[in-house]
Amino acid sequence: MKSYTDYLWFNTKKQKEIVNITSEVSGHLKSSQIQEGFCLVSAMHITSAIWVNDEEPGLKQDVMAWLEKLAPQDDYLHHRTGEDNGDAHLKRTLIHHQVILPVTNGRLDLGPWEQVFYMEFDGQRKKRVVVKIIGD
Amino acid sequence: MKSYTDYLWFNTKKQKEIVNITSEVSGHLKSSQIQEGFCLVSAMHITSAIWVNDEEPGLKQDVMAWLEKLAPQDDYLHHRTGEDNGDAHLKRTLIHHQVILPVTNGRLDLGPWEQVFYMEFDGQRKKRVVVKIIGD
Amino acid sequence: MKSYTDYLWFNTKKQKEIVNITSEVSGHLKSSQIQEGFCLVSAMHITSAIWVNDEEPGLKQDVMAWLEKLAPQDDYLHHRTGEDNGDAHLKRTLIHHQVILPVTNGRLDLGPWEQVFYMEFDGQRKKRVVVKIIGD
Repeated sequence: MKSYTDYLWFNTKKQKEIVNITSEVSGHLKSSQIQEGFCLVSAMHITSAIWVNDEEPGLKQDVMAWLEKLAPQDDYLHHRTGEDNGDAHLKRTLIHHQVILPVTNGRLDLGPWEQVFYMEFDGQRKKRVVVKIIGD
Repeated sequence: MKSYTDYLWFNTKKQKEIVNITSEVSGHLKSSQIQEGFCLVSAMHITSAIWVNDEEPGLKQDVMAWLEKLAPQDDYLHHRTGEDNGDAHLKRTLIHHQVILPVTNGRLDLGPWEQVFYMEFDGQRKKRVVVKIIGD
Repeated sequence: MKSYTDYLWFNTKKQKEIVNITSEVSGHLKSSQIQEGFCLVSAMHITSAIWVNDEEPGLKQDVMAWLEKLAPQDDYLHHRTGEDNGDAHLKRTLIHHQVILPVTNGRLDLGPWEQVFYMEFDGQRKKRVVVKIIGD
């Protein structure tokens, strides 16, 4: 079994942002030379998430508006610590913070419209995503 | 390390449907002859999901009604593309599109009531789920 | 490839509870002697979940209050079976029931504030979580 680990760094300009990282993850897979296995992509900061869906601008606005409705910016108990990002913790929770991408014949085995996105809910801070691939 | 990859095909009659795929996944595990490892089950189309919960008809109606409340059929920006399935993208997101099933002693290591379901939110189209198992 | 499997047992005093299991999972990783790989932590009962977020008491109250709003105790069809825990099935679904923790250099490769929690939504019953680690 081989394993490969690297980290993607983010420091988004906007507080909330959706960044397509499919090519970047594919590049890491190529570097790993792994042909068959699993590629974990996991947001290491607790106010961001990973989403696998469609690269369509309208849909990306829809999902952000939907998150704002289900996990709104509000007055959370968490804010007694001095933070103001309670909503971002909940948005990460709703989207989920990680995905496993299957690796088949040396490529990400994704569906025809599946793209991998980093979702930032409390940006303008330096943050990391781990990309870890295991296989042969 | 061994690996095994296959695909399940779906073309549901109804637009929204919950299909128990536990036996089918178990059959693939048997074919793989893998005894210890992880089995990934991941919906490759962006309007369907994988759910691990109870085989109980009332609950299955409850979860669909709940999804309709939290991610309703509505007038989404995504529909400017000609699609009408914005809600299905959000429902997939809420449920999550994949699970990892642990494989122990050659069997799916599930809890007493855990069953694996394919959830279709925009059916009557041909769609795939990847089943990928790695281990020994 | 090595593999290691064990189970954590829970029988919470309260019906709804959040239990930090990071050290316990780390202990299992140490026992496994695996240096590079993936650690699956998955709730085997369909009314509990696994959450990776911040160890902050206010936030933990916030997430429970939020779940109560999005997946309230209510009159579900599932209750025709004699159960009264329909909300707990939905809460597990929203949080998701499992996570994969990357293992790097023999340690859980978590972000600076990432902690692993067992979330119980229908407690006072004996329940299990599987911890399965594969790698080298």
